[in-house]
Amino acid sequence: MPRWESDAQGRLERAALELFETQGFERTSVAQIAGAAGLKERSFYRYFPDKREVLFAGDELEAHLVAGVEATDPDLTPLEALLTALRTAEETFRPREFLLRRAKVIAANPALAERDLIKLADIADALARALERRGVEPGRARFIVDVVLAIHRRAASRWLTDPDTTLSRLITRAADELREEVTPPTPPADVAP
Amino acid sequence: MPRWESDAQGRLERAALELFETQGFERTSVAQIAGAAGLKERSFYRYFPDKREVLFAGDELEAHLVAGVEATDPDLTPLEALLTALRTAEETFRPREFLLRRAKVIAANPALAERDLIKLADIADALARALERRGVEPGRARFIVDVVLAIHRRAASRWLTDPDTTLSRLITRAADELREEVTPPTPPADVAP
Repeated sequence: MPRWESDAQGRLERAALELFETQGFERTSVAQIAGAAGLKERSFYRYFPDKREVLFAGDELEAHLVAGVEATDPDLTPLEALLTALRTAEETFRPREFLLRRAKVIAANPALAERDLIKLADIADALARALERRGVEPGRARFIVDVVLAIHRRAASRWLTDPDTTLSRLITRAADELREEVTPPTPPADVAP
Repeated sequence: MPRWESDAQGRLERAALELFETQGFERTSVAQIAGAAGLKERSFYRYFPDKREVLFAGDELEAHLVAGVEATDPDLTPLEALLTALRTAEETFRPREFLLRRAKVIAANPALAERDLIKLADIADALARALERRGVEPGRARFIVDVVLAIHRRAASRWLTDPDTTLSRLITRAADELREEVTPPTPPADVAP
């Protein structure tokens, strides 16, 4: 597999990000992105269905996570199966510096922010179906997916800004924090008179 | 406050839902919705900025939840403060039968499904800011909001289909389930030889 930095898809993604940053998402055309990546416009559409999609890397993350869930030990709890899959998601990530810039561009463009929400909803649907295939009841599957995506978001936002750690460790940390958040505070012990 | 069934906003919401169901979202115009509600087209825009918004009831739920968080005992944990606010959300809900039909129309229309995701993201942002005003660090605030919205979704989907229970009770039930999901299974006790 070619390195992301040098292959056509990677060049398109980096060219698009650069153009969105400098001249804005709305004012950038697919032809410009392709041109900046040294490709013809029609090559763009071999990788992405439209301009909004170029920052969302197709369905790589979704496919990776679903395969990850399918590969986990069937004895794991559904929550642990999802966390196990998420711990390896870093493999599909673009470089941190690219992702930080990408997050800013997405936050600044409503059309991209919408697509981001839709992508996440699609991933949630796919993961819920993967849990259902393990025999988890649909309502419970969706609930666990929603909770795990909260853990993932907490971990991924730390990962973005902390170069010294792995996503896997941050997932474990966020899962531990969740356990604390939902555990009612212990009332002070009675002191015997 | 007029009953939702008879006031202009309620009439517009019910007329829109009916038209979206029978002829589809795309083929329904604002003028038709207003006409079916016995109003002029320009009256529609007193209540909703556009056609997509008519099923989303403005910012009632968001305002209700933020006010709810602000009214809770400052000694509650952030998670409990949010759950306490959510337990009263039922007051702002439309009738169950309307919401069930609404959910089907939204699921069938990508434009409405997008707006639904955006509304939820807006509510999440507002609730995270409400927790920050209680002194919760922003990353933790967002994490707790995400978790609580997972609890809310679990409770609300049961509420929709179970007429014999209250949202408040279902919130408590889902929070209890979450506690179980994140508690590692107890290993079998060692049996002393």
